[in-house]
Amino acid sequence: MPKPIITLLTDFGTRDYFVAAMKGVVLNICPDAMLVDITHEIAPFSIPEAAFTLTQASRYFPKGTIHIVVVDPGVGGARRPLLVQTGGQLFVGPDNGVLSLILQDGTPSETRVLSNPEFFLPEVSRTFHGRDVFAPVAAHLARGASPDRFGPVLTGPSPVGFDRPVQTAPNRWEGSIIKIDNFGNIVTNFDYEHFSWVTSAPFECEIAQQIISTYAPTYCESADSQPVALFGSAGFLELSLNRNSLAASWKAGVKEPVELRRQDTADG
Amino acid sequence: MPKPIITLLTDFGTRDYFVAAMKGVVLNICPDAMLVDITHEIAPFSIPEAAFTLTQASRYFPKGTIHIVVVDPGVGGARRPLLVQTGGQLFVGPDNGVLSLILQDGTPSETRVLSNPEFFLPEVSRTFHGRDVFAPVAAHLARGASPDRFGPVLTGPSPVGFDRPVQTAPNRWEGSIIKIDNFGNIVTNFDYEHFSWVTSAPFECEIAQQIISTYAPTYCESADSQPVALFGSAGFLELSLNRNSLAASWKAGVKEPVELRRQDTADG
Amino acid sequence: MPKPIITLLTDFGTRDYFVAAMKGVVLNICPDAMLVDITHEIAPFSIPEAAFTLTQASRYFPKGTIHIVVVDPGVGGARRPLLVQTGGQLFVGPDNGVLSLILQDGTPSETRVLSNPEFFLPEVSRTFHGRDVFAPVAAHLARGASPDRFGPVLTGPSPVGFDRPVQTAPNRWEGSIIKIDNFGNIVTNFDYEHFSWVTSAPFECEIAQQIISTYAPTYCESADSQPVALFGSAGFLELSLNRNSLAASWKAGVKEPVELRRQDTADG
Repeated sequence: MPKPIITLLTDFGTRDYFVAAMKGVVLNICPDAMLVDITHEIAPFSIPEAAFTLTQASRYFPKGTIHIVVVDPGVGGARRPLLVQTGGQLFVGPDNGVLSLILQDGTPSETRVLSNPEFFLPEVSRTFHGRDVFAPVAAHLARGASPDRFGPVLTGPSPVGFDRPVQTAPNRWEGSIIKIDNFGNIVTNFDYEHFSWVTSAPFECEIAQQIISTYAPTYCESADSQPVALFGSAGFLELSLNRNSLAASWKAGVKEPVELRRQDTADG
Repeated sequence: MPKPIITLLTDFGTRDYFVAAMKGVVLNICPDAMLVDITHEIAPFSIPEAAFTLTQASRYFPKGTIHIVVVDPGVGGARRPLLVQTGGQLFVGPDNGVLSLILQDGTPSETRVLSNPEFFLPEVSRTFHGRDVFAPVAAHLARGASPDRFGPVLTGPSPVGFDRPVQTAPNRWEGSIIKIDNFGNIVTNFDYEHFSWVTSAPFECEIAQQIISTYAPTYCESADSQPVALFGSAGFLELSLNRNSLAASWKAGVKEPVELRRQDTADG
Repeated sequence: MPKPIITLLTDFGTRDYFVAAMKGVVLNICPDAMLVDITHEIAPFSIPEAAFTLTQASRYFPKGTIHIVVVDPGVGGARRPLLVQTGGQLFVGPDNGVLSLILQDGTPSETRVLSNPEFFLPEVSRTFHGRDVFAPVAAHLARGASPDRFGPVLTGPSPVGFDRPVQTAPNRWEGSIIKIDNFGNIVTNFDYEHFSWVTSAPFECEIAQQIISTYAPTYCESADSQPVALFGSAGFLELSLNRNSLAASWKAGVKEPVELRRQDTADG
């Protein structure tokens, strides 16, 4: 039988003892867990980036994987700790939207409120639920405890952590920047499902008066100095400069709005 | 039987081949070791930060865990390589204070000088004892070699790597900054054991003429723009600005002294 | 039987979902793989740094280890994906020089072009072969698939990713900076095999008119403010300032040339 896989996704960085404490807690309860870091470098408190990264990464993991997500600006406050089951995987994290994107694809899911202290550390601090609540819960799940023992099913709406582009005119949409990746590519929230026309119709994509109107199917095909748009492996529209950081060149940050315009109609 | 756990704590960063070389050495000797990174981003040569991070992280790991600590400005010089047994765990690292905090809690311990070259790599370089001494020693311990085979028991004092606050007047103490964490919280060396009165008595905590006099039991309860003091999950007094970096806002670095004053007495 | 070891070496950074997606793909195919990160912080597209880091790290891993190397500026273009067998280990990566250094030591090797789509993900994107080609190939190798099933043997030359120093006069060589390590040491491409005379003969090593002429066998032996040259644990000449960053002090970056001069002859 393969070892249970537990992933960790946080905004804790890797300089502090936080992540190691969570791993120690897991291994105390479930010594044969296989721990995999998704990332610990989510921008502090950035729920959209966490939701995006979780969705992109989790789809490549086997069924049965348990994901711990701790981007939790409201720790110690009123937000609820959750357990979500969907697509054969389990997710634990706070009820602040970080788990919202994995729920938006029509797959059946069940969400529970983590309320059974039997699965928490004996003492739950007010500042570090990753260690005291989410890590031990994940470890007990990895050991085979049934989800229905962790708390009641959540009914009613959950916070949404991820903005979708908004249509502002017949052929205009305003979107946002989810993240700047390691190569300086700008990842927008324009998804292939709704905006695949960009691959074939004339368009303009604008950030702070800087405009891209070229679609390139691969990074390599762009002339070196010419920024292009392409759908990255994540299925979101990315703006890219071949072998250089477009984000640095454009001085674009995650706060900037992104306007997408379709140009093949009169009102484009 | 669970796999032996070996953790790594260094100031090597994660850009170089150093950490991977240590892991390769371990896996060559003990192929079923489970390797867990505590962190490799201790500030270069910062023994207090390493000692603090080790103590905080190690307490969450199971008995039998072996910790490798390599923050070692004196590598190649006269300092001795050590093996410490305490609390059911094993620690290997240089005799420069990085192992001093785990020894300060009254738990029985035994410290040995690593002197048996049978457990080192055949060739020991002068610059990389992490790979040539500490990694192979940890791997042999993980395979079950008895600690007494590694070298003689150390008697006499060991360097101390960690300053405690100093009382400078009846109600004044001067402490220091152990580290700035990933969220910009300032972790001081005022521990809960000696300074829990901060939670209930009036106080002032000052860094470079900037003063905090509010205690908040949780990050969330502070008004967004008001810095507060709280005992973090580590048991040390932290100074914090809700959802913002206090260290950046105050331009506070680890060199700055911290003064704590108790205010409910005449001489406060 | 020990678990198969798969290492990962990329320029993806650790903020994005890229590395986790590769690990998920591996674990889907080979659930008992032991994953070890070499580094994900190769400077973007830096083939020399990747080739150097791979060679240094891989030598410490057991026989049978499978290394995935993804520093791949040409992804989606004409470069070929390769599988190299040498020294009892397996390496997968693009044909752009990242695998060139492991081949230069006279050890027998066999290189194949990865062309059998049976071992790729069903859909291969144009932008992320790390996930779609190299990760699944490594996982199938870890499960025991024979290398000859992955594609034909490569004949003819392969790109070279790593410059060797060039002799410019009887006692002058021009070399380059491979990388600046985490401590600010400057790692040059002058190797011990060809330049061991530096340890015993008078020399000058110059970067941007700043000169070192002292060799020190260990970091500790240098006076604190005096930069020295030494052969690091990697076997390359490193320029170092004890407990300080020489790279920061000299403002030296990887683009700078390095001149080495031998001084014990008339034309030195």
